[in-house]
Amino acid sequence: MNDWEKLIKQIDDFRNARDWRQYHNPKDLAISLSIEAAELLEDFQWRSSKEAVRSNAENIREEIADVMIYALMLCSELDLDVQEIIEEKLKKNAVKYPVK
Amino acid sequence: MNDWEKLIKQIDDFRNARDWRQYHNPKDLAISLSIEAAELLEDFQWRSSKEAVRSNAENIREEIADVMIYALMLCSELDLDVQEIIEEKLKKNAVKYPVK
Amino acid sequence: MNDWEKLIKQIDDFRNARDWRQYHNPKDLAISLSIEAAELLEDFQWRSSKEAVRSNAENIREEIADVMIYALMLCSELDLDVQEIIEEKLKKNAVKYPVK
Amino acid sequence: MNDWEKLIKQIDDFRNARDWRQYHNPKDLAISLSIEAAELLEDFQWRSSKEAVRSNAENIREEIADVMIYALMLCSELDLDVQEIIEEKLKKNAVKYPVK
Repeated sequence: MNDWEKLIKQIDDFRNARDWRQYHNPKDLAISLSIEAAELLEDFQWRSSKEAVRSNAENIREEIADVMIYALMLCSELDLDVQEIIEEKLKKNAVKYPVK
Repeated sequence: MNDWEKLIKQIDDFRNARDWRQYHNPKDLAISLSIEAAELLEDFQWRSSKEAVRSNAENIREEIADVMIYALMLCSELDLDVQEIIEEKLKKNAVKYPVK
Repeated sequence: MNDWEKLIKQIDDFRNARDWRQYHNPKDLAISLSIEAAELLEDFQWRSSKEAVRSNAENIREEIADVMIYALMLCSELDLDVQEIIEEKLKKNAVKYPVK
Repeated sequence: MNDWEKLIKQIDDFRNARDWRQYHNPKDLAISLSIEAAELLEDFQWRSSKEAVRSNAENIREEIADVMIYALMLCSELDLDVQEIIEEKLKKNAVKYPVK
């Protein structure tokens, strides 16, 4: 098991223990991911980036964790390998945006 | 280096090579994360979860990768440890939602 | 008929002519509203507010229209009066944020 | 003054009285619009559309109002005519999606 698989296992254990997985279809997980991304954005509302980081560091940290947790649940539900999908996307981006 | 540190390094190498890091303040990264989360959601628009997964599997995979890439950039910029912030959040959630 | 009732009628005529209303349950309309809001935000990505307004004026205008169209469809589906819900919210906000 | 202009005037009076307009640049308003759209979406999280409408009617109403208030502030800041931008967008959509 690599580190991502271990993290996904911790998250799956968490939701299995609460019998939550029945609600976790990919569409509702994608909705939740969007909501968490907006909660992260809320930490930056009406503030410069620096002010936000200074005053909301703790909450920013938690909201990034929430976003990652939902993304990892989606990887689990859809049987995606985190490392693989990110490396594939970076390769695709490298073609789209070549280094000058 | 553990597995996410390696991924963060790959992502940082990618954006350093393109001199993009000057634009990557946390506020604009949080904006981008929200935009990518909405692009993922778009794959589920006007469809049931199952239909979406069936017809947009490839794109769903890429959008989840994009979300993870921005989340990892935020971890890099803010010097956050992926494992640590996720485990902390799971612990906090475990208190909030105890197993019955 | 007041001005927003007229606009809602135009929007409803548009979607009735295309037989789209069968898909327009409030949950999927709320998803679409979030997606459009993110498309508006995309016009401001990696730019200052002023630069965005200067370079993307036309698109910003269209995305605001899209957001309003989905909000008006929701008002139509849920039988809400635009003026009434906005005035109620302003009153509630006035209590929450009193003028000093 | 048409009905939209009257509503925008009420909203502008509200924020002028609180001296908020100095913060209301279009980029931060677009961020806020995205956050409010996500709060609306939250009323539908983990629920069918019907269940959400049944259990969260009051809050859905308020969140739609919040979305419209931010959209109208953007119209005010950017000097856009609500009726005009919506009619233009409907015309453009009519070309893109002709009636069969």
